[in-house]
Amino acid sequence: MPIAPDVVLADGVAIPHPSLVNLYGCRIGPDTKVGTFVEIQRGVEIGARCKISSHSFLCEGVTIEDEVFVGHGVMFINDRHPRAAKDGRLQTAEDWTMETTRICRGASVGSGAVILCGVTVGAGALVGAGAVVTEDVPPGTTVAGVPARTMLRRIAGAS
Amino acid sequence: MPIAPDVVLADGVAIPHPSLVNLYGCRIGPDTKVGTFVEIQRGVEIGARCKISSHSFLCEGVTIEDEVFVGHGVMFINDRHPRAAKDGRLQTAEDWTMETTRICRGASVGSGAVILCGVTVGAGALVGAGAVVTEDVPPGTTVAGVPARTMLRRIAGAS
Amino acid sequence: MPIAPDVVLADGVAIPHPSLVNLYGCRIGPDTKVGTFVEIQRGVEIGARCKISSHSFLCEGVTIEDEVFVGHGVMFINDRHPRAAKDGRLQTAEDWTMETTRICRGASVGSGAVILCGVTVGAGALVGAGAVVTEDVPPGTTVAGVPARTMLRRIAGAS
Repeated sequence: MPIAPDVVLADGVAIPHPSLVNLYGCRIGPDTKVGTFVEIQRGVEIGARCKISSHSFLCEGVTIEDEVFVGHGVMFINDRHPRAAKDGRLQTAEDWTMETTRICRGASVGSGAVILCGVTVGAGALVGAGAVVTEDVPPGTTVAGVPARTMLRRIAGAS
Repeated sequence: MPIAPDVVLADGVAIPHPSLVNLYGCRIGPDTKVGTFVEIQRGVEIGARCKISSHSFLCEGVTIEDEVFVGHGVMFINDRHPRAAKDGRLQTAEDWTMETTRICRGASVGSGAVILCGVTVGAGALVGAGAVVTEDVPPGTTVAGVPARTMLRRIAGAS
Repeated sequence: MPIAPDVVLADGVAIPHPSLVNLYGCRIGPDTKVGTFVEIQRGVEIGARCKISSHSFLCEGVTIEDEVFVGHGVMFINDRHPRAAKDGRLQTAEDWTMETTRICRGASVGSGAVILCGVTVGAGALVGAGAVVTEDVPPGTTVAGVPARTMLRRIAGAS
């Protein structure tokens, strides 16, 4: 079941290849488009009129506000110190602390970017392709690089 | 339809898992190999004897000449200022300017690289794994890093 | 056949979406979990109680010891000088030298990382998200960046 029965899709959601995604326990807002080879985990909330592009991974703890562009191959994270096992058994949800991430209205995350956990990307901000975002991005700001640094600050703020 | 009816495949094209790719409106040259979890969009032209490795994304506007290696998880881009929406509706093709990208004969693009739009990677050049290419790469040159910088310039030029 | 008949799966291996992976000729140890959109090539050996997360690519030549975390979208490499073709035909196994990679017990590789070939990531080491690892990572060390540099060296060594 690549789209699990507990996924809530608003009117107008477009998923061109429903057999080539893996969505479960998430909510997707009106007119949002989800590309191929995308995984969206339990608890993720995505707003209206977003584009979630191919090959991206949105983990539990991620909130995407309205009109956000998520490029291709974007990776979100919710565990600052990931480990496979603890005390000789696979880790479970009890063994780690989930940190949340928010991408605010109208922001764009370029392809190949990695967004560390516990950060907020402000409204209208632009994360450059291939950037690794390790801290909050102010609204209307363009960041790029590894780790991501400010390239441009728009006077008018978020679009 | 993971391989759309309008895809033009030359003789000898190898796609080991046709149900796990997403190809539409593109042309692929003789003896080229396309890995799993690859998306190739409308208008892309790929030459002969190329390898397009798993998890890569080739967008509209990309041209791949003959004998090019595209590694795993390589992301191409065609929009310098991506946005999901404009004036309260999803962006359409009319709302943005597509920029093209060309990878010339015999070049190699390492795994995990991101190729910004509007660039040409010259014949026989090598883009290092994980590089983010933001400007043209001269023929026969090796580049790496974020953003990609020249590491090596071969005297003999392209192979 | 997204899981080829020659794959050896130990007891307790979990692959939630067997139709959305591409595994062939590899061995996977007890209780290890393999996410969606993962490709694991011939000859790869994966230990017990590992997590191989979505969108990752493990090539021939890679060995993953017990209790290793491989994040999402991680790319491994086995060819330092990749080329698509040689003398006017596609390269074959005879045309290049495979280099091996080992991820030792209890290590974690963050999402979006790229691991160059010929390296060993020591026991309990942590590779930061989005890092490009170009040389060995000592046991118990945290590395990050492009290329990856040491951020932290734990006194107690590997966990």
